[in-house]
Parts: sequence; C-alpha cells; structure tokens
Amino acid sequence: MRIHSDYMTVQTTQKREFMDITPNVKDAAQKSGIRDGFVLVASLHSNSGVFVNDGEAGLLQDVDEWLNRVAPPRDDYHHASRSESNASAHLQNLLLHHQVLVSLTDAKLELGPWQQVIYAELDGQRPKRILIKVFGE
Amino acid sequence: MRIHSDYMTVQTTQKREFMDITPNVKDAAQKSGIRDGFVLVASLHSNSGVFVNDGEAGLLQDVDEWLNRVAPPRDDYHHASRSESNASAHLQNLLLHHQVLVSLTDAKLELGPWQQVIYAELDGQRPKRILIKVFGE
Amino acid sequence: MRIHSDYMTVQTTQKREFMDITPNVKDAAQKSGIRDGFVLVASLHSNSGVFVNDGEAGLLQDVDEWLNRVAPPRDDYHHASRSESNASAHLQNLLLHHQVLVSLTDAKLELGPWQQVIYAELDGQRPKRILIKVFGE
Repeated sequence: MRIHSDYMTVQTTQKREFMDITPNVKDAAQKSGIRDGFVLVASLHSNSGVFVNDGEAGLLQDVDEWLNRVAPPRDDYHHASRSESNASAHLQNLLLHHQVLVSLTDAKLELGPWQQVIYAELDGQRPKRILIKVFGE
Repeated sequence: MRIHSDYMTVQTTQKREFMDITPNVKDAAQKSGIRDGFVLVASLHSNSGVFVNDGEAGLLQDVDEWLNRVAPPRDDYHHASRSESNASAHLQNLLLHHQVLVSLTDAKLELGPWQQVIYAELDGQRPKRILIKVFGE
Repeated sequence: MRIHSDYMTVQTTQKREFMDITPNVKDAAQKSGIRDGFVLVASLHSNSGVFVNDGEAGLLQDVDEWLNRVAPPRDDYHHASRSESNASAHLQNLLLHHQVLVSLTDAKLELGPWQQVIYAELDGQRPKRILIKVFGE
C-alpha cells in the first residue's frame, strides 16, 4: 500500500466562495504515481466544506443561497465563537461535510461526467488548508 | 492491498425511487475475495445519492417527503440545467451525499441490525451507474 | 496494509447527547501501531451520527436545536418504528451522517485546530456501538 499526502492552502477573495478543486486533486493523484486506489479530500477547518457535485456556476449560487435558508445566520446562537465565525457557517459545513473519498482507477479520478470536487469556503479571506491524501497501488 | 471494482447500472421505473442495494454490495464484497477491509459505494451522478440508514419502506417515504421540504423544487433556481434536472435534485443529493464507506470484517459487511445501504434516485427513468469498490486483505 | 478494529459501546444518560470521542479515536490509532493511514469512525446505528466539527459546548447546543428545526419530531411520519425512535432521529442522522474518515500521519490524527470527532446520540439511554477501524502502514 502506497500513501501520498498533498496540502493546498487557499485564501479566497470573498467571504464565501465555491471553487472547483478537481484539477488540484488530479495533480495530487498524478504526483503520487498511484494508479488504483482512492483520494481523501478533506478540509482542515470547521467552516469550509468539500463535496462532489456539478460545479456549474448557477448551481453553486443555488447551493450558497440554499445553505443560508436551511442554516441562516442568526444572532441568538449559543456558540462561543473562537473567531469571528457565526455558528451558521459550522451548521452549513455539517450540511455539506468536510470531506469526500474519490476513487482512482487507471490513474484517473472516477467521477461521473457532471461531478466535480468542490471546495466550499464559508468564512474566507484568510488562509485555509485542504488535505489531499492518495492511497492504493 | 487488494482492490476490486464492480459497477452496477440501475434504471428506475419511477422518477424518484429508493432502493436497498445491500445485496449488491454484499455480492461485490464476496466476489472480491477480500475478508478484511472496506467498500466504497458511490453514485457517479450528481442527482442520485447513496446513504446508510434503516431501509424500512415508511421511513424511505419520510426521507423522500423530507427532502422535498428541505430542498423543494422551485422555478427560480439559477442552475443552467445540463439536462432536465431541477437544481433541487442536486441540493437533495448534497443532503444525502453520494457515497458511503462500509467496513468489511470476516468477509461480512459491518452494518448495524437496522442499517442498509440505500440508493436514492432523485432523477431516474434513465441509466445510472454506481461504483462498488472493495479494498483490503 | 495493516488493519486494526476497535469497538466502543456508549450509553448516554440523556436521550440526546453529543460527545467528543476524539480521545477514543486517538487511543485506537495508538493501539493499532499504524503511523500513516486512515481511521474510519462509524456509528452502527441509524439514529446516532458521527461528524467532525468544532466541539465547543455552545455550538453543539446549536447543532442540537438546528437538527430539531430542520427535521422536527412529527406525529405524521410514515415510519413503522421498529423501536420507540421517531423518524426525525433518522432524518437528523442523514443530516449529520453516520461516519467520517480521518487521516493519520506520523501516528497523529490529522485534524484542524478546531476539529474534533463528535458522536451525536439522537436516541440514547441504551447501549450503542461505534466502530473505529484503522488502516495503513
């Protein structure tokens, strides 16, 4: 079993921003030299998520607005914030999740034609770290 | 480390349909010959999910109705649809997620007594592919 | 590839309770002797979840209340209950998910500074089992 870890740091210009990081995941997979296995893509923060879905711009705007409907910013959360984050960013992170596991076959990511790996920044404008860890043969 | 990939194609008769695919996952695990490891079960589409929960028929109806409450079909989504899918199917897919990782021990799926692997078709009546990938020893 | 499985049984004093089980996950990782790999942490029940987020007490209270807003207890669910669980506990479990995969590097869990592994009991006061399965080298 071979294992290869990559880290990427992103700092978005917007407070909230959705980025297609599929190319970064592909790069890490290629660098690993692993042809058959899996890639874990995980945010190392509780207010930014990673998910697999269609990365079409209109849909990502829908996701953004939907998150704010299902887990809206409120003034009455109990969260004793350790930074300026509102609890809503954490709840939205639970909705999206912070990680995905993508299959790698014949040295290619095994995603459907309309599936991309999306990084969801919910409290940006500061450096955030993402783990991309490949394992297999 | 051994790896075995299976693919299943489903075409539901209903537009929305929930299927217990635990037997398919068991079959793939058995074919792999792997006794200790894990099985990734992933939808290769952005409008159909895979989750682990109780597969009781009434509960699956509750899940179906709940998804339509939390992420309802609307006419004002921004998604520039690449097919006839409404954005709501994508948002519901985010809620359920497109994949699970199930443990395999002594050649048996390690699920609780009321846990099944459920495929959630949110935009069916056409062929959809599911990846079942086993790894371990 | 080495694999090590641990099981923990919890019985909460409250019907609903959130527990930081990061120490248990660390213990299992240490016992495994595996230095580079992954840990799957999975609830073996459909009414208790496992997630990674900030374990701050106020936030966990926010999560608890939010779950009851997004998937409230109702009298008109279709779920033919196999126990006293209301369907809402299952829907809330779907929101949180029942499992996470945590990276292990240099024999340490690879979590961000505000990330903990949280067990979410949604129907407690009885014994529940959690699988902690480590694999790697």
